[in-house]
Amino acid sequence: MEVTRLNFGEIIPELENDITSSHFLAIDGEFTGLHTGQDFNAFDTPQQYYAKLRSGGMDFLLVQLGLCTFRYNKDTGQFTHKAYNFYVFPRPFSRSAPDPRFLCQSSSLDFLVSQGFDFNKLFKEGIPYLTEAEEKKLREQLEEKQKARANSSSSKNEDSSASIPIPEEHTELIEDVCVRINDFLSNDEQDELILDGYNGFVRKLIYQTVGERFDSRSMHVETRAIDNHNRALVVTRALSDEDRKKKEEERQEQEKKELDTAVGVSSVIRMISQSGKLIIGHNMLLDICHILHQFCTPLPESYSEFKELVTFMFPRILDTKYMSCMDPFKDQISSTVLGHLHKTLSGEPFELVNVAPAVEGRGYASAEEKAHEAGYDAYLTGVCFLTLANYLGSLEEPAKKPVLPNSPLLRPYINRLHLMRVQDVTFIDLTGEDAEPPRDHVFHVTFPKEWKTYDLTQLFSPFGSVYVSWLTEASAYVGLHRRDQAQLVLNTLTQSDTYSVERYTEHVKRIKQTQRQCRCHRSSHSSQIYSPRATSQQRKKRSLEVQLTSTVQPLSSSYNSARKRSRSFGDIEPIPEEETEAEDSKSGKGTVAAVAGGLAKVKRKKGKQGATAMFLAAANISTGKRKQEFEECDSWE
Amino acid sequence: MEVTRLNFGEIIPELENDITSSHFLAIDGEFTGLHTGQDFNAFDTPQQYYAKLRSGGMDFLLVQLGLCTFRYNKDTGQFTHKAYNFYVFPRPFSRSAPDPRFLCQSSSLDFLVSQGFDFNKLFKEGIPYLTEAEEKKLREQLEEKQKARANSSSSKNEDSSASIPIPEEHTELIEDVCVRINDFLSNDEQDELILDGYNGFVRKLIYQTVGERFDSRSMHVETRAIDNHNRALVVTRALSDEDRKKKEEERQEQEKKELDTAVGVSSVIRMISQSGKLIIGHNMLLDICHILHQFCTPLPESYSEFKELVTFMFPRILDTKYMSCMDPFKDQISSTVLGHLHKTLSGEPFELVNVAPAVEGRGYASAEEKAHEAGYDAYLTGVCFLTLANYLGSLEEPAKKPVLPNSPLLRPYINRLHLMRVQDVTFIDLTGEDAEPPRDHVFHVTFPKEWKTYDLTQLFSPFGSVYVSWLTEASAYVGLHRRDQAQLVLNTLTQSDTYSVERYTEHVKRIKQTQRQCRCHRSSHSSQIYSPRATSQQRKKRSLEVQLTSTVQPLSSSYNSARKRSRSFGDIEPIPEEETEAEDSKSGKGTVAAVAGGLAKVKRKKGKQGATAMFLAAANISTGKRKQEFEECDSWE
Repeated sequence: MEVTRLNFGEIIPELENDITSSHFLAIDGEFTGLHTGQDFNAFDTPQQYYAKLRSGGMDFLLVQLGLCTFRYNKDTGQFTHKAYNFYVFPRPFSRSAPDPRFLCQSSSLDFLVSQGFDFNKLFKEGIPYLTEAEEKKLREQLEEKQKARANSSSSKNEDSSASIPIPEEHTELIEDVCVRINDFLSNDEQDELILDGYNGFVRKLIYQTVGERFDSRSMHVETRAIDNHNRALVVTRALSDEDRKKKEEERQEQEKKELDTAVGVSSVIRMISQSGKLIIGHNMLLDICHILHQFCTPLPESYSEFKELVTFMFPRILDTKYMSCMDPFKDQISSTVLGHLHKTLSGEPFELVNVAPAVEGRGYASAEEKAHEAGYDAYLTGVCFLTLANYLGSLEEPAKKPVLPNSPLLRPYINRLHLMRVQDVTFIDLTGEDAEPPRDHVFHVTFPKEWKTYDLTQLFSPFGSVYVSWLTEASAYVGLHRRDQAQLVLNTLTQSDTYSVERYTEHVKRIKQTQRQCRCHRSSHSSQIYSPRATSQQRKKRSLEVQLTSTVQPLSSSYNSARKRSRSFGDIEPIPEEETEAEDSKSGKGTVAAVAGGLAKVKRKKGKQGATAMFLAAANISTGKRKQEFEECDSWE
Repeated sequence: MEVTRLNFGEIIPELENDITSSHFLAIDGEFTGLHTGQDFNAFDTPQQYYAKLRSGGMDFLLVQLGLCTFRYNKDTGQFTHKAYNFYVFPRPFSRSAPDPRFLCQSSSLDFLVSQGFDFNKLFKEGIPYLTEAEEKKLREQLEEKQKARANSSSSKNEDSSASIPIPEEHTELIEDVCVRINDFLSNDEQDELILDGYNGFVRKLIYQTVGERFDSRSMHVETRAIDNHNRALVVTRALSDEDRKKKEEERQEQEKKELDTAVGVSSVIRMISQSGKLIIGHNMLLDICHILHQFCTPLPESYSEFKELVTFMFPRILDTKYMSCMDPFKDQISSTVLGHLHKTLSGEPFELVNVAPAVEGRGYASAEEKAHEAGYDAYLTGVCFLTLANYLGSLEEPAKKPVLPNSPLLRPYINRLHLMRVQDVTFIDLTGEDAEPPRDHVFHVTFPKEWKTYDLTQLFSPFGSVYVSWLTEASAYVGLHRRDQAQLVLNTLTQSDTYSVERYTEHVKRIKQTQRQCRCHRSSHSSQIYSPRATSQQRKKRSLEVQLTSTVQPLSSSYNSARKRSRSFGDIEPIPEEETEAEDSKSGKGTVAAVAGGLAKVKRKKGKQGATAMFLAAANISTGKRKQEFEECDSWE
């Protein structure tokens, strides 16, 4: 079902119940953009990948959150689902509320609108959100404001000595306004007098003059926005003390309600977090990052803090993209694009799990084509997960069906996030050290800046075909398809005047050294790729780590299985017919994109170190009750 | 009338005719946002203002361009108008086309949608655009691509030696595909065979195998996007040489047409520029900046290059906001907000000029309320301009009516752009040195970071009320309302342990010195405010300056009139009742906004110096015919 700010309040109790009683959840997001530029490199380490994602992608907005709850009925042996599509838009609810700026990628908006996404509904009826820090800040500000109001009503005009002299050209106007106010006060015809059409300076003069000439016990002046853009002064008759008090109470009530409403989607994320349920996503790194960054706390610079943050908020997640790239699925699934995966799982040897809507009108049928509606994609992801899980069960002796979310069979896939566009199955291991994907067959090559991909493939042609991943206009990583040729390359392609070839690992080591040197004088040209681990807040973190390791079971690396699949490529170099276009964008060396729309790189404010630790410490309180529920849930199989 | 990409091609001839036969044009833009943050300072110099605008505002998108053409009919003595609303959106027309990223401000989108702006129409039917540099680049790329196609059709499989070994897990799949292709080729039932559901690596393997096993004269394989996101291989039977040639010609024709269409709105701007007509706008600095940046060439870092660029593209512009802030209007117009201005000009002593639509359905009636539709605002601006101009004529002896765009009475207002939020009437003088607004009454004050506005007003209270303009959490500019007290401040508020007070001019001088020192080692903390004048391309520029000065008449500074109005404020400090909110945002010191949506600061690529000069040199050719037309037009009064 569609959820906007018009029905958000209504559905909350139902949603809360659905989440609590579910056996697992699936999520998906739609975004205003994906990449700020051609940033990722096919041989990025997980840490480099995270740093790039954080600096390049978090300024797009998650505009639709799909949530699908799945519930298993023991009696029927069937799963049912309920799907929610939240429209998300940070419409500022007051002048002091955050007014976020966010980035859009033209092709992404074009894609969404071509899929029927309703942007008018988004901007009109989207549900707002606040991070915990924003909410706290706003609550404090509101309290101060209300206090200030209480004080100001008792004291008035304390600094009339410092009033602005009225410029000659405005005296007539000011006198005229005073006459109008007098007229207004001397008869009861109107409830209020609107003084519109004056700029801020004139409004200030009027305000000042009124304070000097009129009795504040008989009248009240306030500023009001009259058509979103313009502000007018509004004069009303003074209220009795009792009426004034009542009005103030109503106003405070209204302000509190506004703020509660403004928490919006963030409260859904908090609910999901508190539930501790297994969360399924397809290629979900970007979704997870956006959800944390937008609704919880800005993504930390430190990669290890990021891992802590994810596992703290979502202790059990499973990425169906990662799962379907691994044994025993990888040989049977030729494309892990969600739609393709679903199609493949609909045929032999798989048995697609049928998941009916729990309630008419609150879900989907598999046959429906609503691809790229976040709720539908979440639903499809959940169905794929169940089908994959049951396949694992079918391989057991005796066969096991259904395989439920807490089955040990799922352990190798839990808390691992697939990395797109990186060679070999590379993933973020949220609860351990990342496995190092094989890079023995990869070389860092420098060459004249006139060289194109063709020159590199020629250079390496004695060793078979290669994968070229550009770094700068005069350097690239080159990966061999025939990995057994690596030593031969090092024996043959020694340094020349034209080019240089070195092992990938040596190059990475050298960069790390340079970066360590640079860090001392923080020169502006140092790359952001290797984010130095934040050293602050160590104490808080250590205590958190203890909590974290006690909740989340560390898993032994299943890297061996990834190693076997050494010749599969997540995203490979284009086929010749596609190459022309890719070549274009290479030879353009980014200038077209840069010229085009002002390629945006977003700087973050300094001084956020330790923000994550603070968030975790604060969040810890509100998610305190989770562990218990999680254990209860553990016992349902 | 609304113009989208559906009717854009059709209306071009009519539009061209309207522009050429018009007597002046009015423009207005709607944007996805205005400010990246609380950047502007009330005492910015025009150069500082430009630097901030350029670095902070140009990443928003102009999404609607309003153009209103005004034509005077000598026989009737009446003006008529025609209004166009162009929806503007840079939908990438191909994979190699620019895919701009742009910024949105939540409150701006909220505002637009509340005014009925249709974002679905924008993203679906918006008209694209290309700067001249982008267009040139794309034309070159297209030519290269077409050449590459011509070459590749003759030579095939030249590097099959470097083919990728097919991994074991894919052999069955590849064999299966070959069988399907054989089947397809051996009967005529289908026109094409779509091989869908394979990832890029598998597609590459298929492509490679097909090249090895099948005769390229009997079949053709290409990649096609099948649902915007996914790509499939499409196999077709080979064509006869003649058919192939014909198909290639059609394809080239189609590609050229696509590129022509992609120039879109930029061609309208070029038309306007070539016409050399007087262009009216209300508070038009932002409009002019966006139009140049988005449709012509990225705004130059150098302020003087910016002025050259504007006057070159639009040799005569008039800002009704500036005009109505100046003599003889300033005393009679208490708010220069467009709606207020229009209302004021509808009453005595003004005589609102009635401008009927030239054609039914192509314009507005004054009574209509379509505020913030760009075309309507442009129309209203033109009407205000005519009314202001006629008022000038009415003061002449004998009275002159109508006052037409080339009247000498308008000279004091030509090519001056009003600066919002800056104290005193501060403006950019496009064709001369900027006048320095009075700053004798302004002081740079430093103080403990705990201080708030109240502490500053207390400190200065002996000298009357003050205007406080924050710089950092521990410094601010403080302006006296009673400017005659300036010397007294310097005599009284000498340095103390707690605070320091120095003249505005001294502080600015000091900053400039520091900046000159910093420039040597380009440390990252140096502020961008004082953009150093670009020194490159001096030769080109000098030759341009000669051209420019011969076209545009330099105007003697009319600064004296601005000086007289020394006590008027463009944007003033809030009145007490409004202060709470302002104080909130001060005490927040930007953190809420920064946390909120990832406050975006956009870095520009280096190496653009001289881009403006290059643009001007190139544009010079295409606008070569302008001067003559401009002179012809001069003779119509």
